[in-house]
Amino acid sequence: VSLQLAAIVQALGGELHGDGTLTIEGLAPLESASPDDLSFLANPRYRQQLETTRAGCVIVAPAMREPAEARGACIVADDPYLYFARVTQLWKKTLPVPAGPAIHPSAVVDPEADIAEGVRIGPLCVVERGARIGRDTELKGRVFVGADCVIGDRCILHAGVVIGADGFGFAPRPGGAGWEKIEQLGAVRIGDDVEIGANTCIDRGALADTVIEDGVKLDNLVQVAHNVRIGRNTAVAACTGIAGSAVIGANCMIGGAARIQGHISIADGTFVSTGTFISRTIHKPGMYTGVFPMDDNASWEKNAAALKQLHSLRDRIKALEKKS
Amino acid sequence: VSLQLAAIVQALGGELHGDGTLTIEGLAPLESASPDDLSFLANPRYRQQLETTRAGCVIVAPAMREPAEARGACIVADDPYLYFARVTQLWKKTLPVPAGPAIHPSAVVDPEADIAEGVRIGPLCVVERGARIGRDTELKGRVFVGADCVIGDRCILHAGVVIGADGFGFAPRPGGAGWEKIEQLGAVRIGDDVEIGANTCIDRGALADTVIEDGVKLDNLVQVAHNVRIGRNTAVAACTGIAGSAVIGANCMIGGAARIQGHISIADGTFVSTGTFISRTIHKPGMYTGVFPMDDNASWEKNAAALKQLHSLRDRIKALEKKS
Amino acid sequence: VSLQLAAIVQALGGELHGDGTLTIEGLAPLESASPDDLSFLANPRYRQQLETTRAGCVIVAPAMREPAEARGACIVADDPYLYFARVTQLWKKTLPVPAGPAIHPSAVVDPEADIAEGVRIGPLCVVERGARIGRDTELKGRVFVGADCVIGDRCILHAGVVIGADGFGFAPRPGGAGWEKIEQLGAVRIGDDVEIGANTCIDRGALADTVIEDGVKLDNLVQVAHNVRIGRNTAVAACTGIAGSAVIGANCMIGGAARIQGHISIADGTFVSTGTFISRTIHKPGMYTGVFPMDDNASWEKNAAALKQLHSLRDRIKALEKKS
Repeated sequence: VSLQLAAIVQALGGELHGDGTLTIEGLAPLESASPDDLSFLANPRYRQQLETTRAGCVIVAPAMREPAEARGACIVADDPYLYFARVTQLWKKTLPVPAGPAIHPSAVVDPEADIAEGVRIGPLCVVERGARIGRDTELKGRVFVGADCVIGDRCILHAGVVIGADGFGFAPRPGGAGWEKIEQLGAVRIGDDVEIGANTCIDRGALADTVIEDGVKLDNLVQVAHNVRIGRNTAVAACTGIAGSAVIGANCMIGGAARIQGHISIADGTFVSTGTFISRTIHKPGMYTGVFPMDDNASWEKNAAALKQLHSLRDRIKALEKKS
Repeated sequence: VSLQLAAIVQALGGELHGDGTLTIEGLAPLESASPDDLSFLANPRYRQQLETTRAGCVIVAPAMREPAEARGACIVADDPYLYFARVTQLWKKTLPVPAGPAIHPSAVVDPEADIAEGVRIGPLCVVERGARIGRDTELKGRVFVGADCVIGDRCILHAGVVIGADGFGFAPRPGGAGWEKIEQLGAVRIGDDVEIGANTCIDRGALADTVIEDGVKLDNLVQVAHNVRIGRNTAVAACTGIAGSAVIGANCMIGGAARIQGHISIADGTFVSTGTFISRTIHKPGMYTGVFPMDDNASWEKNAAALKQLHSLRDRIKALEKKS
Repeated sequence: VSLQLAAIVQALGGELHGDGTLTIEGLAPLESASPDDLSFLANPRYRQQLETTRAGCVIVAPAMREPAEARGACIVADDPYLYFARVTQLWKKTLPVPAGPAIHPSAVVDPEADIAEGVRIGPLCVVERGARIGRDTELKGRVFVGADCVIGDRCILHAGVVIGADGFGFAPRPGGAGWEKIEQLGAVRIGDDVEIGANTCIDRGALADTVIEDGVKLDNLVQVAHNVRIGRNTAVAACTGIAGSAVIGANCMIGGAARIQGHISIADGTFVSTGTFISRTIHKPGMYTGVFPMDDNASWEKNAAALKQLHSLRDRIKALEKKS
């Protein structure tokens, strides 16, 4: 594949400085780009890489135009990272990928499922009865969409995703005689423009539905329990678990391997750090963290031992303060 | 779907107060129930919701009979939550679901697998040679059951479950020359009435078998390593990892994203909190916790920094105590 | 299956003391072995089990030869654990497993994928166009290998593995208008002799490839994000998440449920403890830990509460020191 700079600017806008007939053979970061590559400078902190990169052309913000032009071709765009994202999309469209069938013959799609136009369903997917898949949504190979679950338009579900398995609901029988299953009678409703990573699970609701709003992005191996609601454009990194009936606001960023307690809510625009357990409702947006700082093992052992006496250490400080 | 109150009480017992011909169109929590819905009050703490709910009928404990009757129809049952669980089951049975084939034609079931009566195997499952699936057990779509693994009666395995992949066993070769595979010669034995959540993995044993006893409930994305044993009726929430040869007692509740050390044991009836790492054998049942408390990020940073000096803080307190 | 001791020593070397015609019917740990079983003593700490085991034959190190011989047949080998690993391999080869087709007819293998000799592809796998699978590599059932990904020779990929789903890459649109997808144009390159556990995910790179070097062993439910590199012979236990562009050295051991920050690197030969979050680059090999020590819940609550004031406790100690 190759693209001329002029064709890129024609498709995506931006201000080209340099030779429009220059042909780009690949996309690469500044430090490893070759003269055939297009690169980008999104963070002014890495400005000095402009001087050393061998990239054939660099996407830069208006403020970087001068140093960029001094070294060769550049495309000036208001938001170089966003522009770069759109170049990756243009690049992918240019790749000569054979179309293949819209619904792979090995997929098992129930005749009572409702599949909109433009949907692509990859090999070995299962779509059960009553499920609805919106326009131009793509299910990669080996995706499972359970009965009556609804997926919006332009979604991407990666391999191994499971939508609409039963939520984890059981009532204890008296006398330790085990558990009585609570049938999960709700479904899963997923909005438009949602992307869901490999092997991620979203359970169906117990009575009402589990809801994923428009624009949500879930990474791989994420667990979304029954009756959770995730607000518009929130992004959740890999290995995170969200317990039942939690309500996560819009435009949140949830770090990897975070755990969200059940039946709590999180304000719009909240950041949760990697590995943090959110144990109560968050009313005030901000960044929340709770992870044990790593250390060499010997230091950790000493501090962890002291931590188990922390409460009494506090008492000893109090006692000293009284005396002094 | 709709059910008359009289039909519910006839099927499940309980004491109906009110009009038996009243028709229920759905199940819902007290706060969102409409006059066509059946609801329940399991926890006396939410008693005041009785006064405001619009539910057509409420399942209550004997102690709540009076206030419940005062507002309309009610079913009195000893354990309203358990009763509600059974209503969900009755409801599901009433749904007009087409039966479909017992073994979906797209499933790959080895002719040397032993499939009992009443088993249902969903689309795109794999059941390898020598595996045994007990009566009335259901494998939803895309379940994998490896060679020689045994599943009991009335189990439910959700989409993406992997039973009987190899345990993680390697012997180091001398001189850093990598790893020698230890073939995993055991299998997995799962009892009756076990439910296993989406994308959960249970590895086969190295020499002996990995064992899941009757009535165990595993949520989604749980990892059960080789030679683990999980006791009767224990429930394990999502994203938990159980390392090799751990022995978990009966009637335990293991919170989400917990980690259980290998080669330890946990007493019957133990509760493990979300995100807790159980690092040693637990002899005494109780509730065990070990998770860093969340905080706003700035506070966390200050406390985490101090935590790395905690051992020396303890020494400084000692020194002060000696002086004072 | 059964094997004579003489046949084992002939195949694997080692020094047999005892009757070579003795027939072994199984492999078992010392404590549960019966007289028909072969066992091994790898750790001198368990030496006293030699006296009580009923095993028909025991694999021991040269230093243990005398006490082992005193109780019956033994095989003396320099590294009894490694020898035992090879016995499991010999055992497995002896099992009468029907061969089955090299590529199961239910697998969906693109005609433009490149499948080397000796490859085995199990039921319901997907191998997309441009993917390459090296000699004698085995894909168990329900494995997904995405377009253009490369798997080396003699690898084992367990059920549910997803290689080459899109990395998690999005550029924010201005004004909170959601996310623009960054197409993931790289692939995944996996070396030789790599084993990958059930439901583990390795994402394709954004521009360059995600790389797993020779001899790496990944357990179940591991997440490897885009552009990660994992060095030769490193082993990663279950439920671990490795964020984008992290570089892990060779011969590392990463404990279960660990989390590795993105864009950092870890020195060769580093040990990471279970549940530890590696938040910064590690230059010096060693063992690193960061996990909250478990406690009974009441003690944890008190210490966790004090932990949230730790910074101020440090200040109070300082104040006391000034006074004293």
